[in-house]
Amino acid sequence: MTITITAFDHSPDGGKGLARDTRVRWALEEVHQPYAVRLVPWRAMKEPAHLALHPFGQIPTFEDGQLVLFETGAIVLHLASHFPGLLPADPTARGRAISWLFAALNTIEPPILELSNAKLLERDQPWAAARLPLVQQRVRDRLRQLAARLGEAEWLDGGFSAGDLMMVSVLLRLRSSGILDEFANLAAYVARGEARPAYQRAFAAQLAVNLPKAPG
Amino acid sequence: MTITITAFDHSPDGGKGLARDTRVRWALEEVHQPYAVRLVPWRAMKEPAHLALHPFGQIPTFEDGQLVLFETGAIVLHLASHFPGLLPADPTARGRAISWLFAALNTIEPPILELSNAKLLERDQPWAAARLPLVQQRVRDRLRQLAARLGEAEWLDGGFSAGDLMMVSVLLRLRSSGILDEFANLAAYVARGEARPAYQRAFAAQLAVNLPKAPG
Repeated sequence: MTITITAFDHSPDGGKGLARDTRVRWALEEVHQPYAVRLVPWRAMKEPAHLALHPFGQIPTFEDGQLVLFETGAIVLHLASHFPGLLPADPTARGRAISWLFAALNTIEPPILELSNAKLLERDQPWAAARLPLVQQRVRDRLRQLAARLGEAEWLDGGFSAGDLMMVSVLLRLRSSGILDEFANLAAYVARGEARPAYQRAFAAQLAVNLPKAPG
Repeated sequence: MTITITAFDHSPDGGKGLARDTRVRWALEEVHQPYAVRLVPWRAMKEPAHLALHPFGQIPTFEDGQLVLFETGAIVLHLASHFPGLLPADPTARGRAISWLFAALNTIEPPILELSNAKLLERDQPWAAARLPLVQQRVRDRLRQLAARLGEAEWLDGGFSAGDLMMVSVLLRLRSSGILDEFANLAAYVARGEARPAYQRAFAAQLAVNLPKAPG
């Protein structure tokens, strides 16, 4: 049985690793599971064949025999629950790690998505410049709380977990804004995540898809 | 051992059931677990005692002996994983139900949160009226995909699951906007969720906290 995931045939970020397949590739590398990738052309994202796998016409999806998953959080949690390496064995520590996974996706990522929308979807609107500081402040408010909790710890709760994998992945989206670097301990935390060999392999794999093709 | 959750001592919505403790109360009722509630005054939300339980100073939290969880998604998933009633036994159906739980929180809720921010936090900004239709459209785009997948089915994937509990809870936040009623099958889906006895008990319990107190 081969695990198969889907990814963009060319990522909107050109290979910076911000598309969500990188999160799943990273989890697969952390748990040492081989996987195949099916690239989905943009024109096929909203077509019936892909919508059958992903109701919102996005990537990544995850297939392993009869099991078909969508949503990055569900895929990472599945991998973390079925293979060692991403969740502690102790039930209370495991519960806290899963809390951090959800916090990354439902508390930290929404204001970051709003910031992305402000910069991309609304950049030509007349309110763009005046509104941006408000949206940035909502991101900062969350990061201040996260930074206070992390303190000088290496990871959010004991050893590296699926919660850290997702939190680092979400925070990476902020790097270009400069906001991440306002919080030295969070910037260092993200850098520790990126330095992991599993992340490096995941990043290289997504980059290989997005490198300019040599002229035939 | 008693399960204890936290909730606002008075909810910002005055008892409409939109605060996130209702989602956890509903899950507890679906799996028939008794629970205690500790009400947290607003002034105490960002104080050290509560921040120790919830790094972002929010409600709800969940305590059961040594286990302390935050994030509604993590709490509902914990309950669904440990007690029967909210997840199917078949592993592939279980994986799909968990995908829907994450879809509610990371795909459907972010644009709804952005709409709430537009209406509440930015209502007095000069761009408020001009920008609102754009934000509403982002919500509609997601709801159209969700409505297409649901079709005439009763629930998102077979029997009622934790994924439906979370999706209905997220969609309830849209009712006052009128957008939910543009999608007849989604409005009926939400009404089916609200009609469940477990939801009714959860709603009544949070309302009892928020009813105006009789003058002493």
